[in-house]
Amino acid sequence: MNTHANTPAPDDLTLWDRTHNLHPWTGIRDWRKSDLLRVNTAQGIHIWDSTGKRHIDGPGGMWCVQIGYGRAEMAEAIAAQAMAMPYASPWSFTTEPAALLARKLAELTPGDLNTVHFTTGGSTAVDTAIRVVQFLNNRLGRPDKKIVLSREKAYHGSTYLAATVTGKERFKTRFDKADDLVRFLPDVNPYRRPAGMSVADWGDLKIAEFEQMIAEVGPERIAAFIAEPILCSGGVVVPPPGYHQRTHEICRKHDILYISDEVVTGFGRLGHWFASQDVFGFTPDIITCAKGLTSGYVPLGACILSDALMERLAGVEGDDVFYNGYTYCGHPVACAAALKNIEIIEREDLLAHVRRITPQFQARLRAIGERFDIVGDARGMGLLGCLECRPDLSDESYAKHLQFGAKLDAACEARGLLLRPYGNMAVFSPPLIITTEEIDEMFDIMEAGLTQLSAEYDG
Amino acid sequence: MNTHANTPAPDDLTLWDRTHNLHPWTGIRDWRKSDLLRVNTAQGIHIWDSTGKRHIDGPGGMWCVQIGYGRAEMAEAIAAQAMAMPYASPWSFTTEPAALLARKLAELTPGDLNTVHFTTGGSTAVDTAIRVVQFLNNRLGRPDKKIVLSREKAYHGSTYLAATVTGKERFKTRFDKADDLVRFLPDVNPYRRPAGMSVADWGDLKIAEFEQMIAEVGPERIAAFIAEPILCSGGVVVPPPGYHQRTHEICRKHDILYISDEVVTGFGRLGHWFASQDVFGFTPDIITCAKGLTSGYVPLGACILSDALMERLAGVEGDDVFYNGYTYCGHPVACAAALKNIEIIEREDLLAHVRRITPQFQARLRAIGERFDIVGDARGMGLLGCLECRPDLSDESYAKHLQFGAKLDAACEARGLLLRPYGNMAVFSPPLIITTEEIDEMFDIMEAGLTQLSAEYDG
Repeated sequence: MNTHANTPAPDDLTLWDRTHNLHPWTGIRDWRKSDLLRVNTAQGIHIWDSTGKRHIDGPGGMWCVQIGYGRAEMAEAIAAQAMAMPYASPWSFTTEPAALLARKLAELTPGDLNTVHFTTGGSTAVDTAIRVVQFLNNRLGRPDKKIVLSREKAYHGSTYLAATVTGKERFKTRFDKADDLVRFLPDVNPYRRPAGMSVADWGDLKIAEFEQMIAEVGPERIAAFIAEPILCSGGVVVPPPGYHQRTHEICRKHDILYISDEVVTGFGRLGHWFASQDVFGFTPDIITCAKGLTSGYVPLGACILSDALMERLAGVEGDDVFYNGYTYCGHPVACAAALKNIEIIEREDLLAHVRRITPQFQARLRAIGERFDIVGDARGMGLLGCLECRPDLSDESYAKHLQFGAKLDAACEARGLLLRPYGNMAVFSPPLIITTEEIDEMFDIMEAGLTQLSAEYDG
Repeated sequence: MNTHANTPAPDDLTLWDRTHNLHPWTGIRDWRKSDLLRVNTAQGIHIWDSTGKRHIDGPGGMWCVQIGYGRAEMAEAIAAQAMAMPYASPWSFTTEPAALLARKLAELTPGDLNTVHFTTGGSTAVDTAIRVVQFLNNRLGRPDKKIVLSREKAYHGSTYLAATVTGKERFKTRFDKADDLVRFLPDVNPYRRPAGMSVADWGDLKIAEFEQMIAEVGPERIAAFIAEPILCSGGVVVPPPGYHQRTHEICRKHDILYISDEVVTGFGRLGHWFASQDVFGFTPDIITCAKGLTSGYVPLGACILSDALMERLAGVEGDDVFYNGYTYCGHPVACAAALKNIEIIEREDLLAHVRRITPQFQARLRAIGERFDIVGDARGMGLLGCLECRPDLSDESYAKHLQFGAKLDAACEARGLLLRPYGNMAVFSPPLIITTEEIDEMFDIMEAGLTQLSAEYDG
């Protein structure tokens, strides 16, 4: 598609990228020595790289391209808004796309979650959510009620405050966090339960740990609990049954706000607009979302607040200005993209489609766990999947520098499927439009890749 | 332009907006009681509201719409990229727009500022800059060198960390800040200098305060100084001559990094790509930018790092992963918008245009200061302007609830010009494409508004 006469040669672009473009999570000492794959065009669930090779986009962008690539009506809606009114200051004005989208989100979210503060992505949505909680407790005269409970393996973003409540990679980074504002609960992954323990007992243990943490810290010091319905970036960890409802009830009891971080689970990933109520049976005080909100076509996030929370915020005297917000809050082009994205999900009934194809997707996933000895756990829900290496093979004592995720990704990439490698795991979350045939193709490639890896590991 | 048959009636939209859309800096107790002006379409320097009334866009969006509205080639470039490759994970891939833009920014920035980390806007660029500084000092084994010097009236954004280094409105908000990470230097505004003091002496005083602060806190605890070349949101405060060069030299001496926050001053506002070197004669260690980078058409920001800083970051052993970054880092649609925006600025030679029209703009601004007794200060630089009310009229003792900015904005809005009111000030920064005729029209309206206000204030 790059048909311009002045399109630079591929090797210049890759050189410029590794000379000037500092990507996330790069090793600062070595990043200039290697090139990232350059991707040029995409259509449906497929991406073409700069050599012309076609790949199935297993990660769906970065858990975000719900409606797939190459949607002409998205490009048209975005262009029409960019032409009519590309920008309007949210301090002074409103626009039709922002007003329509705020109302639409109030409709799509559960319960009384009806007030939307737009942000630029998931990190700023989480940053905002925690700042709202701080604002509330300052206004209520409880300045010491500020600690946020989070969890090991949680990922909530990359601003200083969002990184503060992120449990993943916590001890491997030289970036600072506001450690006094957070406490971490132990891993909830049922796969990590001790040998012989039932999942139900594991669930009870997680609830006991939750109550114990509250007792230790003191509910008068705990402002909020932040949780992804499924810990996605931490390895698609589905908590034990009843976990969310039970933690939500405990939060209620202690006046601890529940922030449900639906940046990944929102907008159809589990076959519903939001997972909190429709999948897990509870209505949080705050929902944060981004990614699938626009299918990644234009950056946008949102922090959505309950009526009950808004009433408490407004219910006391004193400084009440909501000093939070960005130049790009409610950006009209981003909101127009979100509206068209939601319209497409509705018109094509993609939520029902996801619910229809989920059994096939999850069955093929579980079959891999059964078939391949090197796979320790094959887990997921909806169109989320994770393959984790058998623990003894993940161990450095078995083979130093062993990277199951990277090896599996490479084996699949050679066969036309991209995954997201993460240490001893590989995760995937394809566009929601994936067909049953394409699901089979995806898992056929994974099985071929695992057959290759099994030979390596046995050798 | 809203010709769809199903376009909702205006009163529904305004109702939905104030029911569901929580805008920045809203009074949380009263925001649902009033409507914001709804804007529908825009062209050049003009905005049309939902009643069909045309306004000159005095604030240029929110200091950002450099190339003006209704640029068909922007809409086309954005749509073409959204169609070809709307999203690519910056963790795994690069794209042509991101690689080209990173290289272009390395060219446009001064000195050795050659490494770009893309963000979603100004707040996340500043959040990243401070996290980089923390990362550096942790890697260098100086974990106590973390305090950031900032200034009263500074505005650096709205994430928890960006708000932490913001001096503006600091004591009026119930939002938390990380107060242990920051120290604030007193107001640098020459207009605030004591009666009888020369601007040169005021400049010496500001430098003495800067050195005194460093001595008091201890240079071994100070990591960085963050400063806008001109404090824009704080009221277009131009520091005394030589201020930036002198503070920069002092920073060098104490190994304090200089973060130049060019979110407003970048991309032509002062007639240059960046103001640090070309206007103020110094090269910082980090430049943050956003706004004019895309003229606001798509959200994008950048944190740009010097080679010297990158070498120090890479020069030590130990955990070196750059754990910072967002799903929308280097977003291909945003980068394509920035590339087209920069191409337009270059092709139309808008930097030279700004330098050509600046004398007229600033002369008309100063003339207002001379002519109207109620104006205490008329200040600015490039295409930045601020009118501040005479101090005795700003005083609550003169007239309680007096709001010069809001009154002047209302008087001008009635005549077809929007300003940005801010307490006893009104600020403006029109699109860079403004013509000499349009500058005259803008200031003619301001003079008419001030004539009306003068009568009110005298009455």
